[in-house]
Amino acid sequence: MYDAEDTVFLLPGPVKMHPRVLRAMSAPALNHRGPEFKDLLTELRELVQYLFGTKGDVAILSGSGTAGLESAVSGLLHKPDKVLNLVNGKFSERFGELCGVFATPKPLLFEWGRAVDPQRVAAALEEDPSIKAVTVCWNETSTGLTNPIADIAKVVKKHDKLLLVDGITAVGGLENHMEEWGIDALVVGSQKCIAAPAGLAAVALSKRATESLHSETSFYTNLKAHVEGLAKQDTPFTPAVPLFLALREALRLLKEEGLENRVVRTRKLAEAARAAYEAMDVDLFPDARFASNTVTAVRYPPGIDDAKFRKILREQYHVILAGGQSQLKGKIFRIGHMGICSFPDLAAGFTGIEGTLAAMGHKFERGAGVAEVARRA
Amino acid sequence: MYDAEDTVFLLPGPVKMHPRVLRAMSAPALNHRGPEFKDLLTELRELVQYLFGTKGDVAILSGSGTAGLESAVSGLLHKPDKVLNLVNGKFSERFGELCGVFATPKPLLFEWGRAVDPQRVAAALEEDPSIKAVTVCWNETSTGLTNPIADIAKVVKKHDKLLLVDGITAVGGLENHMEEWGIDALVVGSQKCIAAPAGLAAVALSKRATESLHSETSFYTNLKAHVEGLAKQDTPFTPAVPLFLALREALRLLKEEGLENRVVRTRKLAEAARAAYEAMDVDLFPDARFASNTVTAVRYPPGIDDAKFRKILREQYHVILAGGQSQLKGKIFRIGHMGICSFPDLAAGFTGIEGTLAAMGHKFERGAGVAEVARRA
Repeated sequence: MYDAEDTVFLLPGPVKMHPRVLRAMSAPALNHRGPEFKDLLTELRELVQYLFGTKGDVAILSGSGTAGLESAVSGLLHKPDKVLNLVNGKFSERFGELCGVFATPKPLLFEWGRAVDPQRVAAALEEDPSIKAVTVCWNETSTGLTNPIADIAKVVKKHDKLLLVDGITAVGGLENHMEEWGIDALVVGSQKCIAAPAGLAAVALSKRATESLHSETSFYTNLKAHVEGLAKQDTPFTPAVPLFLALREALRLLKEEGLENRVVRTRKLAEAARAAYEAMDVDLFPDARFASNTVTAVRYPPGIDDAKFRKILREQYHVILAGGQSQLKGKIFRIGHMGICSFPDLAAGFTGIEGTLAAMGHKFERGAGVAEVARRA
Repeated sequence: MYDAEDTVFLLPGPVKMHPRVLRAMSAPALNHRGPEFKDLLTELRELVQYLFGTKGDVAILSGSGTAGLESAVSGLLHKPDKVLNLVNGKFSERFGELCGVFATPKPLLFEWGRAVDPQRVAAALEEDPSIKAVTVCWNETSTGLTNPIADIAKVVKKHDKLLLVDGITAVGGLENHMEEWGIDALVVGSQKCIAAPAGLAAVALSKRATESLHSETSFYTNLKAHVEGLAKQDTPFTPAVPLFLALREALRLLKEEGLENRVVRTRKLAEAARAAYEAMDVDLFPDARFASNTVTAVRYPPGIDDAKFRKILREQYHVILAGGQSQLKGKIFRIGHMGICSFPDLAAGFTGIEGTLAAMGHKFERGAGVAEVARRA
C-alpha cells in the first residue's frame, strides 16, 4: 500500500527535502526578534545573495512564489503602468493575471511548449513605446520549457524597460547571470531548486529597481519593507520561523555542494531523463531546443489515461509525479529533477514509470529508460 | 549558557509548540495536489470552523496574521470606502496602516492601555454616516488589553457597518461568539492561542461578508479565491505544506482539550500571572478591568533596564519573554500564557522573573509570585 512518508518524490516542486532540512525545521519555538533569529537572517541574506549571484538587495517573504512575484510587480509598477506579459504556459499566464491587479497588462502570447521569441518581443516594444516593463517566466514549469532569458533580457535592456522575471523553478538549477543580463527583479520559490519546504519566496533586485521601490499598493507583500527589513536583520511582519530555519539549512546544503555543481548536476539529470524517455519511445512535450533542465514534461503515449497512470504509479510504486495543467491536463506528465534529486532517485522513479506504462499497454524495451539513467550516473 | 532549544518560552507569540506539532511539521515532502493533502484540507476546514465556532466560510492563508487582515480588508472594501479604525495600541495602529493601502482610513484614537470606548465609537458613526466599516484589534498584544468586543460589535451592528476584527491573539483563547455578535471578518494567527508555528492565518466570515467578497485589489491575499479554494479542498497558490500539517496537529490538540476548556485554562493562567505580579509589587500596564487573558503586560519597576532584564532572564534562566513596542519600549514587558502554556510553565517563567528582578534591585518577597501561580494550579 501507498505510504506518504516513503516515496520517490519527483514532483516539479515541492521537491524532496534532505533530513537535515526537516530536522532544522522541527526546532522548538524561537524568538523571531531575538539574537538567534538576527544571526539567522544575517546568514540567510548572504546565502540568498549567493544563490542569486548578486551583491545587491534581496528579500525573503513568508509566502509562496506568487507572493514574491506580487511583491515585485506591486513594488515596481503602478496601476497605469503598461506591462508586456510574455505568455507561453500556465505560470506566465498567472503572472499576467497578477499584473492585472497592480498594473496594466498587455499579453504577448506564444504557443504552450514553444519558447518566447525575442524578435517578437522586440517588435512589440517597438510598436508600443509606452510599455514600462516586461514579465517573463524563465522556466515554464507547466510545459517543461526554459525561455531564452539572456536573449530576451538583451532585447528588454536595449529598449530600456524593467524586466521582471519569474525564476521560481530556475534559480538554483539553471545558469544565472542576472546582473550581466540586466534582470531588475528575479523571484525564486523555496520548494524548487533550493529543496526547502514550500512557503517562502526570495526576490533579488537590480540597483535601479531597489531605488524605485514604492509602497503605495501593497502591504503584506511590500517589497521595500521586506528589503529594508532584511538589510537590518529584521522582518516587517512575523516570519514563518520554521521555514526560515529550513531554508537556511537547505541553502547551506546548496552552498556545500556549490551552486555551479548543482547546476551541472541538474543538467545531467535532465539529459538522463530525456534520454530515458527517448529510449522508452515517449515524446518530449516542449520544443526540444528549449527543454528545461529542472522539469521534464512528456506527452502521454496514445491510450494512456492520466489519472489511472498516476494512481498505479503512486499505489504500486510510490512514485509521485505531476500531470498537466489547464489545456494540457490529461495530455502530458511532468517530473522535477532539481534540488537534491539524485541519479538513484531518478532511476527509482523511472523504474515505476516504465512498469506502469508497460502495464498500461505502451510498447517499448523494458529497462531501456532506467539503463539510460544508470549509464549517466 | 543559553540554549535556544531548551527554554521557558513565554513570548506573546509565537508560543511553545507541542512535540506532536513539531513531528507533524517535519514530515517529508507531500503532494499538495494529491489525495492526502485534500484529506488534510477537509479536516483542517472543519477544525478551523470549530476554532471560530462557526459553520460559515473560512480560509487559511500561507502568510502571517497580517496577510489574513489584508485579505479581509482588500476583499471586503474598496479604495474609496471609509473605514473607522479603532486604535489603542501597535497592532490596531498597523491595522489602520493596512487600511490606508486598500481603503480610506479614519482613525479613532484611544490611549494605549485604555480600552476602546463603545460610546465614542457610536458617536463617531453617528457623526459620519458615510463610514462603511469598522476595524478593531480585539486583543491588543502590544498593551496586554482586551477590548470589549461584544459591546463594540453591538454598536457597529446597530449602525449596520461591516465589522473587521483582528483576533490574532484572541481566537482560541478568549470566549468568542462571532455570529451572535455580528462580526463580519475575524482573523487569527497560527502562532498564538492555537500553538502552531508562525506562518499561517485563518479568516472566518459572516454570510454577508462572503457574499460581498471581490478580487479587484488583491492577488496573493485574494480572500475570495482562498475561501472558494478551501471549500473544494484546494488552495489558489502553493500552500506552506509543513505549516498546514503542523496546524492540523495543533488544532487536533486544541479539540482534544476542548475549546471551552482551553479558554477557561487560559483565563486561570492569566489570573495567576496577575496575582503573581501583584504579590511581587509589579504593576499591570493596562486598565485592570480590561487586562487580557492571553497576554499580560506589566510596567518595569523603577530602575529596571529592559535590555539588561531580558538578557539576564534569557542567559541565566532561559526564560524568553517580550519587551514593549514603539512608545512602550523600555517601559513594559509582556508574557503570553495562551496555547498549550501550563501552570508549571508559568511557575518556571516566574522563577526566572523573580530571580532577575531581585538581582536587579527590585524589592519584594521572594517566592511570593511563584506561590500565587502554584496556589492556582
